[in-house]
Amino acid sequence: MRIALLGGTGDIGEGLALRWAYHTDHEVVIGSRDPEKARTKAEEYETELDSRGLDVKITGFENAMAADRADVVVLAVPAYHAADLVHEIADRLDDDTLLVSPAVGMRKGEGGFQYNPPDAGSVTRLVADAAPNEVAVVGAFHNLSADRIANLDVELDLDTLVVGDDGDAKRNVSDLAAGIEGLRALDAGPLANAAEVESLTPLLINIAIHNDGMHDVGVTFE
Amino acid sequence: MRIALLGGTGDIGEGLALRWAYHTDHEVVIGSRDPEKARTKAEEYETELDSRGLDVKITGFENAMAADRADVVVLAVPAYHAADLVHEIADRLDDDTLLVSPAVGMRKGEGGFQYNPPDAGSVTRLVADAAPNEVAVVGAFHNLSADRIANLDVELDLDTLVVGDDGDAKRNVSDLAAGIEGLRALDAGPLANAAEVESLTPLLINIAIHNDGMHDVGVTFE
Repeated sequence: MRIALLGGTGDIGEGLALRWAYHTDHEVVIGSRDPEKARTKAEEYETELDSRGLDVKITGFENAMAADRADVVVLAVPAYHAADLVHEIADRLDDDTLLVSPAVGMRKGEGGFQYNPPDAGSVTRLVADAAPNEVAVVGAFHNLSADRIANLDVELDLDTLVVGDDGDAKRNVSDLAAGIEGLRALDAGPLANAAEVESLTPLLINIAIHNDGMHDVGVTFE
Repeated sequence: MRIALLGGTGDIGEGLALRWAYHTDHEVVIGSRDPEKARTKAEEYETELDSRGLDVKITGFENAMAADRADVVVLAVPAYHAADLVHEIADRLDDDTLLVSPAVGMRKGEGGFQYNPPDAGSVTRLVADAAPNEVAVVGAFHNLSADRIANLDVELDLDTLVVGDDGDAKRNVSDLAAGIEGLRALDAGPLANAAEVESLTPLLINIAIHNDGMHDVGVTFE
């Protein structure tokens, strides 16, 4: 599959790009508002993978170009950019494009972070509201430490939660997740349950802040 | 220590009562609105522990009587009863009583449960607002499957999260948690972070609903 990682130049986007390129045969395309930055980062990722003996092509484009002809579009951008970005790329999406939302709204308080959802109730819902009706929206990859996933030397052994109203779309995203070694996808139910999934991200940050040696903490469910 | 489990006749209260009586030397007192029910349940727990070769005394009282002279009072009641219960027992609490809130407000939607906090922002905050000023309030034990913790044949291997504004009180509750074999307490920061901790409970229920073989799912952070 062709996966476009919009906002793929930083944070969780970088980790997902490297992991999919490293562990799977999916084609990875990096998107950014700045096409030059997208190209530079794509080259960096190629160099990183080349240093591990993997000769793979990663391309970089402006976001709408990156989304064009992608099977899966991941909106790896800050929560407050997610809806605008969907509008920008809407005419590049068709009825079999999968739109994936990993963003979380948070605010920093004293002693930690708190979940700060948009009026829609969750970022995933906001993205679904902004997307064309025929495009399936799935929330996933919210709760992964950016540093941990971007470091290919680290075994993940992590769970990620998948929410959405379209069962087939959720299964496809779960398969994409499972393609990454050490990552397991669990179904957290319909879009209406997205806020509880997104709330886990500030909780993980709070645990990282308040407990020694848990900087890159992730979660597993057993 | 003397631990009063108000609402100790059902659900998470039962599990905590059995586990503390089984794994530690703490004195366990069961509280209920109905003192007869509290006594009956206390006897049931004694019988269960006796069948495992443990001769231990568990007593049962009406809630305020149970809270009297307790070092730790756990409000193992539904979220909508928590504040009223604190008012009922307020004159039994003194400045070294530890008040522990494990309750979570949820509503059932289609396809799962959603977090439904009180106006105070979290049940833990509601309890803190209702409690006398000198009483330390800690949120903990929200995210434990009632069936799993009540079954002494099951090894837990679980984490629980502790929130509160009083560091000493949090450490005491963490020690209480760690006294239960297989349970680890992690610090999730101040009371302001309680909603993110409480939100994990509906998420766990949603995971249990939507994934095979995860009926008694719990969480670990690594």
